[in-house]
Amino acid sequence: MPGSSGLRVAVVGATGAVGRELFCILEDRRFPAAELIPFASERSVGKELRFAGKPVVCQPLKPGCFQGIDVVFFDASDAVSKQWVPEAAQAGAWVIDNSAAFRLDDDVPLLVPEVNGHLLDQAISRAKTSPRGRILAGPNCSTVQLVVALQPLQKRFGLRRVIAATYQSSSGAGTAAMDELRAQAKAYLAGEPISPRAFTHQIAFNCIPHIGGFQDDGSTSEERKIRLESRKILGLPELRISATAVRVPTLLCHGEAVSVELERACSPAEAREAMRAQAGIEIIDDPSKNAYPMGLTSKGDIVPSGSGADPVYVGRIRRDPAFDDYGVAFWIISDNLRKGAALNAVQIGEALLAKLGR
Amino acid sequence: MPGSSGLRVAVVGATGAVGRELFCILEDRRFPAAELIPFASERSVGKELRFAGKPVVCQPLKPGCFQGIDVVFFDASDAVSKQWVPEAAQAGAWVIDNSAAFRLDDDVPLLVPEVNGHLLDQAISRAKTSPRGRILAGPNCSTVQLVVALQPLQKRFGLRRVIAATYQSSSGAGTAAMDELRAQAKAYLAGEPISPRAFTHQIAFNCIPHIGGFQDDGSTSEERKIRLESRKILGLPELRISATAVRVPTLLCHGEAVSVELERACSPAEAREAMRAQAGIEIIDDPSKNAYPMGLTSKGDIVPSGSGADPVYVGRIRRDPAFDDYGVAFWIISDNLRKGAALNAVQIGEALLAKLGR
Repeated sequence: MPGSSGLRVAVVGATGAVGRELFCILEDRRFPAAELIPFASERSVGKELRFAGKPVVCQPLKPGCFQGIDVVFFDASDAVSKQWVPEAAQAGAWVIDNSAAFRLDDDVPLLVPEVNGHLLDQAISRAKTSPRGRILAGPNCSTVQLVVALQPLQKRFGLRRVIAATYQSSSGAGTAAMDELRAQAKAYLAGEPISPRAFTHQIAFNCIPHIGGFQDDGSTSEERKIRLESRKILGLPELRISATAVRVPTLLCHGEAVSVELERACSPAEAREAMRAQAGIEIIDDPSKNAYPMGLTSKGDIVPSGSGADPVYVGRIRRDPAFDDYGVAFWIISDNLRKGAALNAVQIGEALLAKLGR
Repeated sequence: MPGSSGLRVAVVGATGAVGRELFCILEDRRFPAAELIPFASERSVGKELRFAGKPVVCQPLKPGCFQGIDVVFFDASDAVSKQWVPEAAQAGAWVIDNSAAFRLDDDVPLLVPEVNGHLLDQAISRAKTSPRGRILAGPNCSTVQLVVALQPLQKRFGLRRVIAATYQSSSGAGTAAMDELRAQAKAYLAGEPISPRAFTHQIAFNCIPHIGGFQDDGSTSEERKIRLESRKILGLPELRISATAVRVPTLLCHGEAVSVELERACSPAEAREAMRAQAGIEIIDDPSKNAYPMGLTSKGDIVPSGSGADPVYVGRIRRDPAFDDYGVAFWIISDNLRKGAALNAVQIGEALLAKLGR
């Protein structure tokens, strides 16, 4: 890698919902990119985007396209990552992959910097002998916000069981899905017919308990990701954890109702204190003022967070009576395109540069 | 009570969201009402409604107004029920109260006929000596659908723990709240400003983790109702049960993601079989066809149920890995205005008449 002032950075999937956020975040957080090269699918090749006030043109993925690039962010499909991530690593680039392609591979760290950023040391050491060591994965959006909230409880009280129910926005399925929700809501209110495309059923004014593909055990791939990725990130391969993933008719931000059984007794006040001390968490929890996390809140519409750090918002912290003195229930909200994807990826990049001394 | 062909029936709260459904259901199910008297709040007194093709005029509540009435359905506020239910019972009427005013009283049965309709025998016997014996309560909407789904599991496998997360529609807060969701969605899509009235925050394209009032323990009254009413109906006063109640931007039907730990090991197939045999449940659970319960489904838009019985729809039945072989997770949907309120009340009335031999 050349000097940090001269990093060549690429984004694969630059025109997608996460790719767009990534551009903004790299700019806002002054990621040390001297050059930014957007890669896109065939239909977007040649499209002009802007980065740091300058036009940049979408390039096609082709053999050799990653030569001379220092860091590549992948925000495309699992298939695109499977094909191109190894080539990018082989070409000498550090790869931060937001797809599911490598997340569960034993030799690829699955990273949420606040939670397990220390794993970057091993990755840097492995990268000296193997290009595959340069592959770093970012988790599923619903997993990111969950593990950020769980880790302070794990550290202080130990985790025995986790049950999560998600309230996931249409943006998790991409920009076309957000457009579909808007268009369907308009059509529904006007009494016009609706033909679902991005989702299996109508999403406007409806909840769909189905995200991803169905597995043999009746769970969905989204629910499986939450379970397996959380176990890997928290370093608890046997953790009893289950999820129900539901798409709700919101545009941005995922919510989760979480019930936790701890190894040691824990009062709501102790849980709140532990979470408050965790980097990446902001507590919004004042019932007397009707203050709790919401999707619109976390965009700043109702309660400006003022943190500028796109935290995971936690509220409704209370005893969970299903688990007596060992139970804590809470509600979390995070911007799935930012902390759930693009921001987390940039934070992985920042942590990597810091470890590399750049 | 005179002959069943000549029952005088009253509805308190006749112009509300549940009251309107009640009118339709009494008519559709040919409840033996020779006369139907609507009572309404002051601003609706004099308003003309229709029952069985004939006009009926909203009456004011006043001392003596229940004289000569056989059955009164209360679908108004807790305050209205507290004031007028005892008077109606004193006047000799059977009272079916959908408010929370009497639900947890030891001497008032809290009824979901499929689950605990047998309690009517005791009520009928008590009514011979005390007017209060004629007070029958219907549960909170989220509780009704939950206990219908839980009871078959309780009978076959025993319940150890229940964790529910709700996805509750705006109709649970009344017709003004449904209008607010529609109006806000329209305004939001047009980029116009929004001022919440029926809800504490904007509901359009948002989820609000707050239904009812906050309790000292950080739970909401809705969550408390689900816990305490389920315990009472299932006859398990010590049941470990918790809920997170969330308002979502849908118009009708409540969804619930439910995780259950059973006393005895239970496979998903056994759970499905037990629930299929339960009156009041319809299973929609075929992942290969993207078939699972949804609010729009249960209104017949996508998968006509064909049952005509307004069941509780259950799907996504699978093992809950948080509880090993003892865990079952599932997703339920029911029409909160019908089975969650008006239909359940009419079913209580029907079961009562059957027990009385009418």
